[in-house]
Amino acid sequence: MAAKTLQIDNRIKTYLPKEEGLQKTIFQASNYSVCAGGKRLRPMIMEETYRLFGGNGEEIYPFMAAIEMIHTSSLVHDDLPCMDNDTYRRGRKTTWVEFGYDMAVLAGDALLTYAFETAAGAFADTKYPMRVGRAIQILAAKTGMYGMIGGQTVDVEMTEKPMTNEQLDFVYRLKTGALLEASMMIGAVLAGAGENDIKKTEQAASYIGMAFQIQDDILDLTSTTEVLGKPVGSDEKNQKTTYVTIHGLEQSKRDVEEISHKAIELLKELPGENEFLIQLVQMLITREK
Amino acid sequence: MAAKTLQIDNRIKTYLPKEEGLQKTIFQASNYSVCAGGKRLRPMIMEETYRLFGGNGEEIYPFMAAIEMIHTSSLVHDDLPCMDNDTYRRGRKTTWVEFGYDMAVLAGDALLTYAFETAAGAFADTKYPMRVGRAIQILAAKTGMYGMIGGQTVDVEMTEKPMTNEQLDFVYRLKTGALLEASMMIGAVLAGAGENDIKKTEQAASYIGMAFQIQDDILDLTSTTEVLGKPVGSDEKNQKTTYVTIHGLEQSKRDVEEISHKAIELLKELPGENEFLIQLVQMLITREK
Repeated sequence: MAAKTLQIDNRIKTYLPKEEGLQKTIFQASNYSVCAGGKRLRPMIMEETYRLFGGNGEEIYPFMAAIEMIHTSSLVHDDLPCMDNDTYRRGRKTTWVEFGYDMAVLAGDALLTYAFETAAGAFADTKYPMRVGRAIQILAAKTGMYGMIGGQTVDVEMTEKPMTNEQLDFVYRLKTGALLEASMMIGAVLAGAGENDIKKTEQAASYIGMAFQIQDDILDLTSTTEVLGKPVGSDEKNQKTTYVTIHGLEQSKRDVEEISHKAIELLKELPGENEFLIQLVQMLITREK
Repeated sequence: MAAKTLQIDNRIKTYLPKEEGLQKTIFQASNYSVCAGGKRLRPMIMEETYRLFGGNGEEIYPFMAAIEMIHTSSLVHDDLPCMDNDTYRRGRKTTWVEFGYDMAVLAGDALLTYAFETAAGAFADTKYPMRVGRAIQILAAKTGMYGMIGGQTVDVEMTEKPMTNEQLDFVYRLKTGALLEASMMIGAVLAGAGENDIKKTEQAASYIGMAFQIQDDILDLTSTTEVLGKPVGSDEKNQKTTYVTIHGLEQSKRDVEEISHKAIELLKELPGENEFLIQLVQMLITREK
Protein backbone atom coordinates (compact mmCIF):
# COMPACT_ATOMS: atom_id res chain seq x y z
CA MET A 1 0.00 0.00 0.00
CA ALA A 2 2.76 2.48 0.92
CA ALA A 3 4.61 1.44 -2.25
CA LYS A 4 1.50 2.09 -4.31
CA THR A 5 1.03 5.49 -2.69
CA LEU A 6 4.60 6.42 -3.57
CA GLN A 7 4.16 5.24 -7.15
CA ILE A 8 1.00 7.34 -7.52
CA ASP A 9 2.73 10.33 -5.88
CA ASN A 10 5.43 10.20 -8.51
CA ARG A 11 2.90 9.83 -11.28
CA ILE A 12 0.88 12.83 -10.06
CA LYS A 13 4.00 14.98 -9.78
CA THR A 14 4.62 14.68 -13.53
CA TYR A 15 1.37 16.61 -14.08
CA LEU A 16 2.16 19.48 -11.70
CA PRO A 17 3.18 22.86 -13.16
CA LYS A 18 6.75 24.20 -13.11
CA GLU A 19 7.19 26.97 -10.56
CA GLU A 20 8.27 29.72 -12.93
CA GLY A 21 6.87 32.82 -14.61
CA LEU A 22 5.24 35.98 -13.30
CA GLN A 23 2.43 33.98 -11.72
CA LYS A 24 4.92 31.72 -9.87
CA THR A 25 3.06 32.06 -6.56
CA ILE A 26 -0.05 30.26 -7.83
CA PHE A 27 2.11 27.34 -9.00
CA GLN A 28 3.85 27.22 -5.63
CA ALA A 29 0.59 27.38 -3.69
CA SER A 30 -1.00 24.67 -5.84
CA ASN A 31 1.99 22.34 -5.65
CA TYR A 32 2.35 22.94 -1.91
CA SER A 33 -1.26 21.85 -1.45
CA VAL A 34 -1.07 18.73 -3.64
CA CYS A 35 2.28 17.66 -2.17
CA ALA A 36 1.02 17.85 1.44
CA GLY A 37 0.73 14.05 1.36
CA GLY A 38 -2.22 11.75 1.88
CA LYS A 39 -2.95 8.15 1.01
CA ARG A 40 -3.92 8.92 -2.61
CA LEU A 41 -6.90 6.68 -2.05
CA ARG A 42 -8.99 8.06 -4.89
CA PRO A 43 -6.41 7.63 -7.68
CA MET A 44 -5.48 4.23 -6.24
CA ILE A 45 -9.03 2.92 -6.31
CA MET A 46 -9.47 4.44 -9.79
CA GLU A 47 -6.44 2.67 -11.21
CA GLU A 48 -7.40 -0.64 -9.57
CA THR A 49 -10.88 -0.46 -11.07
CA TYR A 50 -9.44 0.36 -14.48
CA ARG A 51 -7.10 -2.66 -14.34
CA LEU A 52 -9.94 -4.84 -13.07
CA PHE A 53 -11.88 -4.22 -16.27
CA GLY A 54 -8.82 -4.91 -18.41
CA GLY A 55 -7.77 -1.30 -19.02
CA ASN A 56 -4.17 -1.10 -20.20
CA GLY A 57 -3.86 2.36 -21.81
CA GLU A 58 -2.37 5.64 -20.68
CA GLU A 59 -5.57 7.69 -20.49
CA ILE A 60 -6.16 6.70 -16.85
CA TYR A 61 -3.11 8.65 -15.59
CA PRO A 62 -4.36 12.18 -16.24
CA PHE A 63 -7.64 11.27 -14.53
CA MET A 64 -5.78 9.89 -11.51
CA ALA A 65 -3.98 13.22 -11.19
CA ALA A 66 -7.21 15.12 -11.81
CA ILE A 67 -9.22 13.44 -9.04
CA GLU A 68 -6.45 14.16 -6.54
CA MET A 69 -6.30 17.81 -7.66
CA ILE A 70 -10.04 18.14 -7.12
CA HIS A 71 -9.83 16.49 -3.70
CA THR A 72 -6.97 18.85 -2.77
CA SER A 73 -8.85 21.87 -4.09
CA SER A 74 -11.76 21.04 -1.79
CA LEU A 75 -9.43 20.71 1.22
CA VAL A 76 -7.78 24.08 0.45
CA HIS A 77 -11.16 25.82 0.42
CA ASP A 78 -12.49 23.80 3.38
CA ASP A 79 -9.59 25.03 5.51
CA LEU A 80 -10.30 28.73 4.81
CA PRO A 81 -11.18 30.97 7.76
CA CYS A 82 -14.75 31.41 6.46
CA MET A 83 -15.18 27.61 6.35
CA ASP A 84 -13.47 25.35 8.95
CA ASN A 85 -10.75 27.88 9.83
CA ASP A 86 -8.05 25.19 10.10
CA THR A 87 -4.43 26.26 10.43
CA TYR A 88 -2.74 22.85 10.27
CA ARG A 89 -3.32 19.79 8.09
CA ARG A 90 -1.12 16.69 8.26
CA GLY A 91 1.40 18.57 10.38
CA ARG A 92 1.90 21.40 7.89
CA LYS A 93 0.45 24.87 7.75
CA THR A 94 -2.69 25.00 5.63
CA THR A 95 -2.47 26.78 2.28
CA TRP A 96 -4.13 30.00 3.44
CA VAL A 97 -1.78 30.27 6.43
CA GLU A 98 1.26 29.73 4.21
CA PHE A 99 0.22 31.79 1.17
CA GLY A 100 -2.51 34.14 2.40
CA TYR A 101 -6.30 34.06 2.28
CA ASP A 102 -6.64 35.50 -1.23
CA MET A 103 -4.00 33.20 -2.73
CA ALA A 104 -5.66 30.15 -1.14
CA VAL A 105 -8.97 31.03 -2.79
CA LEU A 106 -7.13 31.30 -6.12
CA ALA A 107 -5.15 28.09 -5.50
CA GLY A 108 -8.36 26.13 -4.92
CA ASP A 109 -9.82 27.58 -8.11
CA ALA A 110 -6.59 26.88 -9.97
CA LEU A 111 -6.44 23.22 -8.89
CA LEU A 112 -10.09 22.65 -9.72
CA THR A 113 -9.56 24.10 -13.19
CA TYR A 114 -6.25 22.35 -13.72
CA ALA A 115 -7.95 19.04 -12.94
CA PHE A 116 -10.18 19.47 -15.98
CA GLU A 117 -7.30 20.73 -18.12
CA THR A 118 -5.28 17.66 -17.12
CA ALA A 119 -8.17 15.25 -17.69
CA ALA A 120 -8.90 16.81 -21.09
CA GLY A 121 -5.26 16.07 -21.96
CA ALA A 122 -6.34 12.41 -22.19
CA PHE A 123 -7.94 13.17 -25.56
CA ALA A 124 -4.44 13.35 -27.02
CA ASP A 125 -3.60 9.72 -26.12
CA THR A 126 -6.84 7.88 -26.53
CA LYS A 127 -8.46 5.68 -29.11
CA TYR A 128 -11.76 6.25 -27.30
CA PRO A 129 -12.70 9.95 -27.24
CA MET A 130 -16.29 9.22 -26.21
CA ARG A 131 -15.10 7.33 -23.13
CA VAL A 132 -12.85 10.24 -22.18
CA GLY A 133 -15.73 12.63 -22.73
CA ARG A 134 -18.00 10.62 -20.48
CA ALA A 135 -15.28 10.36 -17.84
CA ILE A 136 -14.96 14.16 -17.80
CA GLN A 137 -18.70 14.49 -17.41
CA ILE A 138 -18.69 12.06 -14.47
CA LEU A 139 -15.75 13.90 -12.91
CA ALA A 140 -17.59 17.22 -13.09
CA ALA A 141 -20.97 15.85 -12.03
CA LYS A 142 -19.62 14.02 -8.97
CA THR A 143 -17.61 17.10 -7.96
CA GLY A 144 -20.32 19.68 -8.44
CA MET A 145 -23.62 20.83 -6.97
CA TYR A 146 -25.20 17.41 -7.31
CA GLY A 147 -22.05 15.79 -5.89
CA MET A 148 -19.33 16.79 -3.44
CA ILE A 149 -20.13 20.53 -3.43
CA GLY A 150 -23.80 19.72 -2.81
CA GLY A 151 -22.73 17.75 0.26
CA GLN A 152 -20.46 20.56 1.45
CA THR A 153 -23.36 22.99 1.10
CA VAL A 154 -25.54 21.14 3.61
CA ASP A 155 -22.53 20.49 5.85
CA VAL A 156 -21.70 24.22 5.95
CA GLU A 157 -25.31 25.24 6.50
CA MET A 158 -25.78 22.80 9.38
CA THR A 159 -22.56 23.73 11.24
CA GLU A 160 -23.39 23.85 14.95
CA LYS A 161 -26.98 22.85 14.25
CA PRO A 162 -28.47 19.40 14.82
CA MET A 163 -28.86 17.41 11.58
CA THR A 164 -31.64 15.00 10.73
CA ASN A 165 -30.83 11.47 9.64
CA GLU A 166 -31.75 12.43 6.07
CA GLN A 167 -29.36 15.41 6.10
CA LEU A 168 -26.50 13.39 7.59
CA ASP A 169 -26.96 10.65 5.04
CA PHE A 170 -26.96 13.26 2.26
CA VAL A 171 -23.75 14.89 3.51
CA TYR A 172 -21.92 11.55 3.88
CA ARG A 173 -23.12 10.24 0.56
CA LEU A 174 -22.07 13.36 -1.33
CA LYS A 175 -19.25 14.98 0.60
CA THR A 176 -17.36 11.73 1.15
CA GLY A 177 -18.89 9.28 -1.28
CA ALA A 178 -19.20 11.23 -4.51
CA LEU A 179 -15.48 11.42 -5.36
CA LEU A 180 -15.04 7.73 -4.56
CA GLU A 181 -17.92 6.98 -6.91
CA ALA A 182 -16.28 9.13 -9.57
CA SER A 183 -12.98 7.31 -9.06
CA MET A 184 -14.40 3.84 -9.57
CA MET A 185 -16.81 4.83 -12.33
CA ILE A 186 -14.10 6.61 -14.32
CA GLY A 187 -11.84 3.56 -14.02
CA ALA A 188 -14.67 1.39 -15.32
CA VAL A 189 -15.75 3.79 -18.11
CA LEU A 190 -12.22 4.29 -19.45
CA ALA A 191 -11.64 0.54 -19.51
CA GLY A 192 -14.80 0.07 -21.54
CA ALA A 193 -16.90 -1.69 -18.88
CA GLY A 194 -20.58 -2.38 -19.61
CA GLU A 195 -23.36 -0.19 -18.19
CA ASN A 196 -24.38 -2.76 -15.64
CA ASP A 197 -20.86 -3.07 -14.28
CA ILE A 198 -20.44 0.72 -14.18
CA LYS A 199 -23.58 0.93 -12.03
CA LYS A 200 -22.20 -1.75 -9.70
CA THR A 201 -18.94 0.17 -9.23
CA GLU A 202 -20.94 3.28 -8.41
CA GLN A 203 -22.98 1.44 -5.79
CA ALA A 204 -19.92 -0.29 -4.32
CA ALA A 205 -18.09 3.04 -4.05
CA SER A 206 -21.11 4.57 -2.37
CA TYR A 207 -21.07 1.79 0.27
CA ILE A 208 -17.33 2.19 0.74
CA GLY A 209 -17.69 5.94 1.28
CA MET A 210 -20.46 5.47 3.80
CA ALA A 211 -18.66 2.73 5.76
CA PHE A 212 -15.47 4.80 5.73
CA GLN A 213 -17.27 7.83 7.14
CA ILE A 214 -19.10 5.92 9.88
CA GLN A 215 -15.80 4.31 10.91
CA ASP A 216 -14.39 7.84 11.16
CA ASP A 217 -17.17 8.77 13.59
CA ILE A 218 -16.56 5.61 15.63
CA LEU A 219 -12.81 6.25 15.87
CA ASP A 220 -13.38 9.82 17.01
CA LEU A 221 -15.18 8.32 20.01
CA THR A 222 -13.22 5.13 20.71
CA SER A 223 -9.64 5.76 19.64
CA THR A 224 -6.92 7.73 21.41
CA THR A 225 -5.18 10.88 20.22
CA GLU A 226 -1.90 8.93 20.12
CA VAL A 227 -3.20 6.25 17.75
CA LEU A 228 -5.26 8.59 15.58
CA GLY A 229 -2.65 11.34 15.28
CA LYS A 230 -5.36 13.99 15.73
CA PRO A 231 -7.49 15.03 18.70
CA VAL A 232 -10.27 12.53 19.53
CA GLY A 233 -13.63 13.51 20.96
CA SER A 234 -13.78 16.59 18.74
CA ASP A 235 -17.24 15.68 17.42
CA GLU A 236 -18.65 15.48 20.96
CA LYS A 237 -16.92 18.71 21.94
CA ASN A 238 -18.37 20.49 18.91
CA GLN A 239 -21.80 18.91 19.57
CA LYS A 240 -21.67 17.65 16.02
CA THR A 241 -24.33 15.33 14.68
CA THR A 242 -22.62 12.13 13.55
CA TYR A 243 -23.78 8.67 12.63
CA VAL A 244 -22.94 7.58 16.18
CA THR A 245 -24.97 10.31 17.88
CA ILE A 246 -28.01 9.31 15.80
CA HIS A 247 -27.68 5.50 15.85
CA GLY A 248 -25.52 4.77 18.92
CA LEU A 249 -22.09 3.13 19.02
CA GLU A 250 -23.12 -0.53 18.85
CA GLN A 251 -25.53 -0.05 15.98
CA SER A 252 -22.90 2.02 14.13
CA LYS A 253 -20.36 -0.79 14.46
CA ARG A 254 -22.88 -3.30 13.14
CA ASP A 255 -23.75 -0.97 10.25
CA VAL A 256 -20.10 -0.54 9.22
CA GLU A 257 -19.86 -4.35 9.11
CA GLU A 258 -23.01 -4.71 7.10
CA ILE A 259 -22.36 -1.88 4.63
CA SER A 260 -18.80 -3.01 3.95
CA HIS A 261 -20.04 -6.56 3.50
CA LYS A 262 -22.43 -5.24 0.83
CA ALA A 263 -19.56 -3.41 -0.87
CA ILE A 264 -17.44 -6.56 -0.94
CA GLU A 265 -20.30 -8.69 -2.28
CA LEU A 266 -20.74 -6.23 -5.12
CA LEU A 267 -17.01 -6.18 -5.85
CA LYS A 268 -17.03 -9.96 -6.05
CA GLU A 269 -19.66 -9.79 -8.79
CA LEU A 270 -17.29 -7.80 -10.99
CA PRO A 271 -15.05 -9.62 -13.47
CA GLY A 272 -11.28 -9.89 -13.15
CA GLU A 273 -8.83 -10.09 -10.24
CA ASN A 274 -10.27 -7.81 -7.60
CA GLU A 275 -8.45 -9.12 -4.56
CA PHE A 276 -6.58 -5.87 -3.99
CA LEU A 277 -9.78 -3.81 -4.09
CA ILE A 278 -11.44 -6.11 -1.56
CA GLN A 279 -8.39 -5.92 0.71
CA LEU A 280 -8.44 -2.15 0.38
CA VAL A 281 -12.06 -2.01 1.51
CA GLN A 282 -11.39 -4.30 4.45
CA MET A 283 -8.40 -2.24 5.45
CA LEU A 284 -10.30 1.03 5.25
CA ILE A 285 -13.04 -0.25 7.44
CA THR A 286 -11.13 -2.20 10.08
CA ARG A 287 -8.56 0.57 10.33
CA GLU A 288 -7.76 1.95 13.75
CA LYS A 289 -6.65 5.34 12.58
CA MET B 1 -27.19 43.98 -29.37
CA ALA B 2 -29.73 44.17 -26.52
CA ALA B 3 -31.88 41.65 -28.41
CA LYS B 4 -28.93 39.32 -28.74
CA THR B 5 -28.14 39.67 -25.03
CA LEU B 6 -31.71 38.73 -24.15
CA GLN B 7 -31.63 35.74 -26.50
CA ILE B 8 -28.40 34.51 -24.89
CA ASP B 9 -29.80 35.13 -21.40
CA ASN B 10 -32.73 32.86 -22.18
CA ARG B 11 -30.44 30.25 -23.66
CA ILE B 12 -28.16 30.26 -20.59
CA LYS B 13 -31.13 29.97 -18.24
CA THR B 14 -32.05 26.59 -19.72
CA TYR B 15 -28.76 25.23 -18.34
CA LEU B 16 -29.19 26.54 -14.79
CA PRO B 17 -30.12 24.08 -12.01
CA LYS B 18 -33.59 23.88 -10.47
CA GLU B 19 -33.70 25.36 -6.98
CA GLU B 20 -34.81 22.26 -5.10
CA GLY B 21 -33.36 19.57 -2.86
CA LEU B 22 -31.46 19.63 0.41
CA GLN B 23 -28.63 21.64 -1.18
CA LYS B 24 -31.10 24.27 -2.48
CA THR B 25 -28.98 27.17 -1.20
CA ILE B 26 -26.10 26.42 -3.55
CA PHE B 27 -28.48 26.42 -6.51
CA GLN B 28 -29.96 29.72 -5.36
CA ALA B 29 -26.54 31.31 -4.82
CA SER B 30 -25.29 30.12 -8.22
CA ASN B 31 -28.38 31.25 -10.10
CA TYR B 32 -28.41 34.59 -8.26
CA SER B 33 -24.85 35.18 -9.43
CA VAL B 34 -25.38 34.18 -13.06
CA CYS B 35 -28.65 36.13 -13.32
CA ALA B 36 -27.10 39.37 -12.04
CA GLY B 37 -27.01 40.57 -15.64
CA GLY B 38 -24.18 41.67 -17.88
CA LYS B 39 -23.73 42.02 -21.60
CA ARG B 40 -23.01 38.29 -22.15
CA LEU B 41 -20.13 39.42 -24.33
CA ARG B 42 -18.21 36.14 -24.14
CA PRO B 43 -21.02 33.82 -25.26
CA MET B 44 -22.02 36.38 -27.88
CA ILE B 45 -18.56 36.55 -29.43
CA MET B 46 -18.32 32.75 -29.22
CA GLU B 47 -21.55 32.19 -31.10
CA GLU B 48 -20.65 34.78 -33.73
CA THR B 49 -17.28 33.12 -34.34
CA TYR B 50 -18.96 29.72 -34.59
CA ARG B 51 -21.44 31.00 -37.21
CA LEU B 52 -18.63 32.76 -39.05
CA PHE B 53 -16.93 29.43 -39.67
CA GLY B 54 -20.16 27.83 -40.80
CA GLY B 55 -21.05 26.10 -37.53
CA ASN B 56 -24.73 25.15 -37.44
CA GLY B 57 -24.96 22.47 -34.72
CA GLU B 58 -26.18 22.52 -31.14
CA GLU B 59 -22.85 21.84 -29.43
CA ILE B 60 -22.04 25.55 -29.19
CA TYR B 61 -24.87 26.25 -26.68
CA PRO B 62 -23.47 24.37 -23.66
CA PHE B 63 -20.12 26.10 -24.23
CA MET B 64 -21.82 29.51 -24.36
CA ALA B 65 -23.40 28.78 -20.99
CA ALA B 66 -20.12 27.38 -19.67
CA ILE B 67 -18.00 30.44 -20.49
CA GLU B 68 -20.51 32.71 -18.76
CA MET B 69 -20.56 30.43 -15.69
CA ILE B 70 -16.76 30.61 -15.50
CA HIS B 71 -16.79 34.38 -15.89
CA THR B 72 -19.44 34.62 -13.14
CA SER B 73 -17.50 32.25 -10.89
CA SER B 74 -14.48 34.54 -11.13
CA LEU B 75 -16.58 37.60 -10.25
CA VAL B 76 -18.09 35.85 -7.22
CA HIS B 77 -14.63 35.03 -5.85
CA ASP B 78 -13.17 38.43 -6.87
CA ASP B 79 -15.84 40.17 -4.79
CA LEU B 80 -14.98 38.23 -1.60
CA PRO B 81 -13.72 40.20 1.42
CA CYS B 82 -10.26 38.63 1.10
CA MET B 83 -10.05 39.76 -2.53
CA ASP B 84 -11.69 43.07 -3.65
CA ASN B 85 -14.19 43.19 -0.77
CA ASP B 86 -16.99 44.49 -2.99
CA THR B 87 -20.50 44.68 -1.60
CA TYR B 88 -22.39 45.76 -4.72
CA ARG B 89 -22.17 44.72 -8.35
CA ARG B 90 -24.50 46.04 -11.03
CA GLY B 91 -26.72 47.55 -8.35
CA ARG B 92 -27.28 44.26 -6.50
CA LYS B 93 -25.66 42.89 -3.38
CA THR B 94 -22.69 40.68 -4.22
CA THR B 95 -23.08 36.95 -3.66
CA TRP B 96 -21.14 36.85 -0.38
CA VAL B 97 -23.24 39.71 1.07
CA GLU B 98 -26.47 37.98 0.06
CA PHE B 99 -25.57 34.36 0.91
CA GLY B 100 -22.61 34.55 3.30
CA TYR B 101 -18.85 34.27 2.87
CA ASP B 102 -18.72 30.44 3.03
CA MET B 103 -21.60 29.98 0.60
CA ALA B 104 -19.99 32.41 -1.88
CA VAL B 105 -16.77 30.38 -1.86
CA LEU B 106 -18.85 27.26 -2.58
CA ALA B 107 -20.96 29.04 -5.22
CA GLY B 108 -17.81 30.07 -7.12
CA ASP B 109 -16.54 26.49 -6.95
CA ALA B 110 -19.95 25.17 -7.96
CA LEU B 111 -20.22 27.43 -11.02
CA LEU B 112 -16.69 26.63 -12.13
CA THR B 113 -17.41 22.91 -11.88
CA TYR B 114 -20.84 23.21 -13.43
CA ALA B 115 -19.27 24.95 -16.42
CA PHE B 116 -17.26 21.82 -17.21
CA GLU B 117 -20.23 19.56 -16.51
CA THR B 118 -22.34 21.63 -18.90
CA ALA B 119 -19.63 21.76 -21.58
CA ALA B 120 -19.08 18.00 -21.32
CA GLY B 121 -22.82 17.63 -22.01
CA ALA B 122 -21.96 18.59 -25.61
CA PHE B 123 -20.59 15.08 -26.14
CA ALA B 124 -24.18 13.84 -26.19
CA ASP B 125 -25.14 15.96 -29.23
CA THR B 126 -22.06 16.02 -31.36
CA LYS B 127 -20.78 14.25 -34.41
CA TYR B 128 -17.31 15.56 -33.53
CA PRO B 129 -16.17 14.33 -30.10
CA MET B 130 -12.54 15.33 -30.74
CA ARG B 131 -13.60 18.93 -31.39
CA VAL B 132 -15.62 18.97 -28.17
CA GLY B 133 -12.65 17.49 -26.31
CA ARG B 134 -10.33 20.15 -27.64
CA ALA B 135 -12.84 22.87 -26.80
CA ILE B 136 -12.94 21.64 -23.19
CA GLN B 137 -9.17 21.68 -23.04
CA ILE B 138 -9.09 25.28 -24.35
CA LEU B 139 -11.79 26.28 -21.86
CA ALA B 140 -9.78 24.89 -18.95
CA ALA B 141 -6.40 26.16 -20.14
CA LYS B 142 -7.61 29.72 -20.75
CA THR B 143 -9.36 29.75 -17.36
CA GLY B 144 -6.54 28.27 -15.30
CA MET B 145 -3.07 29.07 -14.00
CA TYR B 146 -1.74 29.84 -17.48
CA GLY B 147 -4.85 31.86 -18.26
CA MET B 148 -7.31 34.01 -16.29
CA ILE B 149 -6.31 32.71 -12.85
CA GLY B 150 -2.64 33.34 -13.68
CA GLY B 151 -3.56 36.96 -14.43
CA GLN B 152 -5.58 37.27 -11.21
CA THR B 153 -2.59 35.95 -9.27
CA VAL B 154 -0.33 38.81 -10.35
CA ASP B 155 -3.17 41.31 -9.97
CA VAL B 156 -3.79 40.18 -6.37
CA GLU B 157 -0.10 40.14 -5.50
CA MET B 158 0.47 43.65 -6.88
CA THR B 159 -2.52 45.27 -5.15
CA GLU B 160 -1.40 48.67 -3.85
CA LYS B 161 2.06 48.13 -5.31
CA PRO B 162 3.39 49.76 -8.50
CA MET B 163 3.42 47.37 -11.46
CA THR B 164 5.97 47.24 -14.24
CA ASN B 165 4.88 47.46 -17.85
CA GLU B 166 5.55 43.72 -18.20
CA GLN B 167 3.35 42.86 -15.23
CA LEU B 168 0.51 45.11 -16.36
CA ASP B 169 0.63 43.62 -19.84
CA PHE B 170 0.54 40.12 -18.32
CA VAL B 171 -2.47 40.93 -16.13
CA TYR B 172 -4.45 42.52 -18.99
CA ARG B 173 -3.58 39.75 -21.41
CA LEU B 174 -4.60 36.99 -19.02
CA LYS B 175 -7.16 38.43 -16.62
CA THR B 176 -9.18 40.14 -19.35
CA GLY B 177 -7.99 38.59 -22.58
CA ALA B 178 -7.83 34.87 -21.85
CA LEU B 179 -11.59 34.22 -21.66
CA LEU B 180 -12.18 36.26 -24.83
CA GLU B 181 -9.53 34.13 -26.54
CA ALA B 182 -11.26 30.99 -25.26
CA SER B 183 -14.61 32.27 -26.54
CA MET B 184 -13.43 32.89 -30.10
CA MET B 185 -11.19 29.81 -30.27
CA ILE B 186 -13.95 27.50 -29.05
CA GLY B 187 -16.34 28.94 -31.63
CA ALA B 188 -13.75 28.28 -34.34
CA VAL B 189 -12.78 24.80 -33.10
CA LEU B 190 -16.36 23.58 -32.77
CA ALA B 191 -17.15 24.81 -36.28
CA GLY B 192 -14.17 22.89 -37.65
CA ALA B 193 -11.99 25.88 -38.60
CA GLY B 194 -8.42 25.22 -39.77
CA GLU B 195 -5.42 25.66 -37.46
CA ASN B 196 -4.33 28.87 -39.11
CA ASP B 197 -7.75 30.44 -38.67
CA ILE B 198 -7.95 29.27 -35.05
CA LYS B 199 -4.64 31.05 -34.39
CA LYS B 200 -5.99 34.21 -36.01
CA THR B 201 -9.09 34.19 -33.80
CA GLU B 202 -6.87 33.79 -30.75
CA GLN B 203 -4.73 36.76 -31.77
CA ALA B 204 -7.75 38.90 -32.67
CA ALA B 205 -9.37 38.13 -29.30
CA SER B 206 -6.14 39.04 -27.55
CA TYR B 207 -6.12 42.46 -29.27
CA ILE B 208 -9.80 42.98 -28.45
CA GLY B 209 -9.18 42.18 -24.77
CA MET B 210 -6.24 44.56 -24.60
CA ALA B 211 -8.05 47.42 -26.36
CA PHE B 212 -11.12 46.88 -24.17
CA GLN B 213 -9.04 47.08 -21.01
CA ILE B 214 -7.10 50.19 -22.04
CA GLN B 215 -10.40 51.88 -22.93
CA ASP B 216 -11.58 51.01 -19.41
CA ASP B 217 -8.58 52.83 -17.97
CA ILE B 218 -9.19 55.85 -20.21
CA LEU B 219 -12.87 56.06 -19.23
CA ASP B 220 -12.00 55.91 -15.55
CA LEU B 221 -10.05 59.13 -16.11
CA THR B 222 -12.13 60.97 -18.71
CA SER B 223 -15.75 59.94 -18.16
CA THR B 224 -18.21 61.08 -15.53
CA THR B 225 -19.85 58.99 -12.81
CA GLU B 226 -23.23 59.73 -14.42
CA VAL B 227 -22.27 58.33 -17.82
CA LEU B 228 -20.26 55.40 -16.50
CA GLY B 229 -22.72 54.31 -13.80
CA LYS B 230 -19.84 53.74 -11.40
CA PRO B 231 -17.43 56.07 -9.60
CA VAL B 232 -14.74 57.53 -11.90
CA GLY B 233 -11.23 58.36 -10.77
CA SER B 234 -11.09 55.23 -8.62
CA ASP B 235 -7.79 54.11 -10.21
CA GLU B 236 -6.13 57.41 -9.35
CA LYS B 237 -7.58 57.35 -5.83
CA ASN B 238 -6.27 53.81 -5.28
CA GLN B 239 -2.90 54.77 -6.81
CA LYS B 240 -3.40 51.88 -9.18
CA THR B 241 -0.98 51.25 -12.02
CA THR B 242 -2.96 51.37 -15.26
CA TYR B 243 -2.07 51.60 -18.92
CA VAL B 244 -2.70 55.35 -18.69
CA THR B 245 -0.38 55.91 -15.73
CA ILE B 246 2.41 54.13 -17.60
CA HIS B 247 1.88 55.49 -21.13
CA GLY B 248 -0.06 58.73 -20.60
CA LEU B 249 -3.56 59.57 -21.85
CA GLU B 250 -2.74 60.60 -25.42
CA GLN B 251 -0.54 57.58 -26.12
CA SER B 252 -3.18 55.30 -24.59
CA LYS B 253 -5.84 56.71 -26.91
CA ARG B 254 -3.58 56.17 -29.92
CA ASP B 255 -2.82 52.61 -28.77
CA VAL B 256 -6.51 51.70 -28.42
CA GLU B 257 -6.98 52.89 -32.00
CA GLU B 258 -4.02 50.94 -33.27
CA ILE B 259 -4.71 47.72 -31.38
CA SER B 260 -8.35 47.66 -32.40
CA HIS B 261 -7.35 48.35 -35.98
CA LYS B 262 -5.11 45.28 -35.81
CA ALA B 263 -8.00 43.21 -34.43
CA ILE B 264 -10.29 44.33 -37.24
CA GLU B 265 -7.67 43.65 -39.91
CA LEU B 266 -7.33 40.09 -38.57
CA LEU B 267 -11.09 39.61 -38.47
CA LYS B 268 -11.29 40.70 -42.11
CA GLU B 269 -8.88 37.90 -43.07
CA LEU B 270 -11.32 35.32 -41.72
CA PRO B 271 -13.84 33.73 -44.08
CA GLY B 272 -17.58 34.33 -43.94
CA GLU B 273 -19.80 37.25 -42.94
CA ASN B 274 -18.02 38.89 -40.04
CA GLU B 275 -19.68 42.27 -40.10
CA PHE B 276 -21.31 41.84 -36.71
CA LEU B 277 -18.00 40.87 -35.09
CA ILE B 278 -16.29 43.93 -36.55
CA GLN B 279 -19.13 46.17 -35.37
CA LEU B 280 -18.89 44.59 -31.94
CA VAL B 281 -15.19 45.40 -31.72
CA GLN B 282 -15.77 48.97 -32.85
CA MET B 283 -18.55 49.40 -30.34
CA LEU B 284 -16.49 47.99 -27.48
CA ILE B 285 -13.65 50.33 -28.20
CA THR B 286 -15.46 53.55 -29.00
CA ARG B 287 -17.85 53.02 -26.10
CA GLU B 288 -18.28 55.81 -23.61
CA LYS B 289 -19.28 53.59 -20.72
